[in-house]
Amino acid sequence: MNHWKPVALEHASRTINHGPTVLVTSAASGRRNVMAAAWSMPVEFVPPRIAVVIDKKTFTRELVHASGTFGICIPGAALADLTYAVGSTSGRDGDKFTRFGIEAKAGPGLGVPVIETGCAAWLECRLIPEKHTEDAYDTCFGEVVAAAADSRIFQGGHWDWRPDNADLHTLHHLGGGLFVRGGDTVRAKAP
Amino acid sequence: MNHWKPVALEHASRTINHGPTVLVTSAASGRRNVMAAAWSMPVEFVPPRIAVVIDKKTFTRELVHASGTFGICIPGAALADLTYAVGSTSGRDGDKFTRFGIEAKAGPGLGVPVIETGCAAWLECRLIPEKHTEDAYDTCFGEVVAAAADSRIFQGGHWDWRPDNADLHTLHHLGGGLFVRGGDTVRAKAP
Repeated sequence: MNHWKPVALEHASRTINHGPTVLVTSAASGRRNVMAAAWSMPVEFVPPRIAVVIDKKTFTRELVHASGTFGICIPGAALADLTYAVGSTSGRDGDKFTRFGIEAKAGPGLGVPVIETGCAAWLECRLIPEKHTEDAYDTCFGEVVAAAADSRIFQGGHWDWRPDNADLHTLHHLGGGLFVRGGDTVRAKAP
Repeated sequence: MNHWKPVALEHASRTINHGPTVLVTSAASGRRNVMAAAWSMPVEFVPPRIAVVIDKKTFTRELVHASGTFGICIPGAALADLTYAVGSTSGRDGDKFTRFGIEAKAGPGLGVPVIETGCAAWLECRLIPEKHTEDAYDTCFGEVVAAAADSRIFQGGHWDWRPDNADLHTLHHLGGGLFVRGGDTVRAKAP
């Protein structure tokens, strides 16, 4: 059964609002790549815009510039090893999807490779060229043009964090392959 | 007993590497403020630089521009109500430190107000003026000039996540006052 449902664009920022480590996907001229990125954040709700740090030496950066697009896939906890693996190897040494057995499909918005198995959500983004911040801070801005999520954990624009969907709880990289997994939820009292 | 220890600047990015919701502190001309920000990330390890989204309508943004400095304090889970409260009220309506009983001290690097009680770490940052990204994306860049952490959870440049320090586990805002608390850690296998 396919649990994936589109996410309304006005809710897209919520998929990364809580700071998960993400997978950045890219493709251009018949080549494709996937890397891990701990450094990303929304910057605007509507239109949904995000920023992500992609080192200028990476193969991903090359493909993102060539295509003007990228994907953000949010791995669930069961993908910790894979997330670390694609963050520790270069796509210049061979296709990482093949090497690590990652199934990807072309996103409906931009044709960017998106990963669903084991992920909680994905975003397809159009790069907003910002030469200065890309050069100075490796910070790339993008506008989300399509989004989807696994409805077992994100539905109607909201996360639904339960013990029975723990494999889809997001990963947050502390460093060196050590992640903290999103745990229980805390409902704050209104002030 | 004071558990706070300085954090070496080359390790400062690790305090927010995993995407916690933070408190942004500021002060200028005898006024001060604190707000919550879910949207922040490191952008460089050395020198340690970060980006944080601060809406141009906020009192914080006014103080940050006036002083050229800001603080990033990382609240532990026990501060969920406070984090939501300072994120839902404006410092223009009265000093939030007084209103919510928040103890702050002047940071040793820049004199920015920093909060230690209930927080896991703090960073003192010098604003790096970037008019275009501030205007277009409310994204403010800063360089960390001093950092410290509660050694019960962060020591020697590393997080140490244990059941007995759960009150200092970081908060990650899902939206609307619902946070996910950093849970157990997952050590990924090297690829």
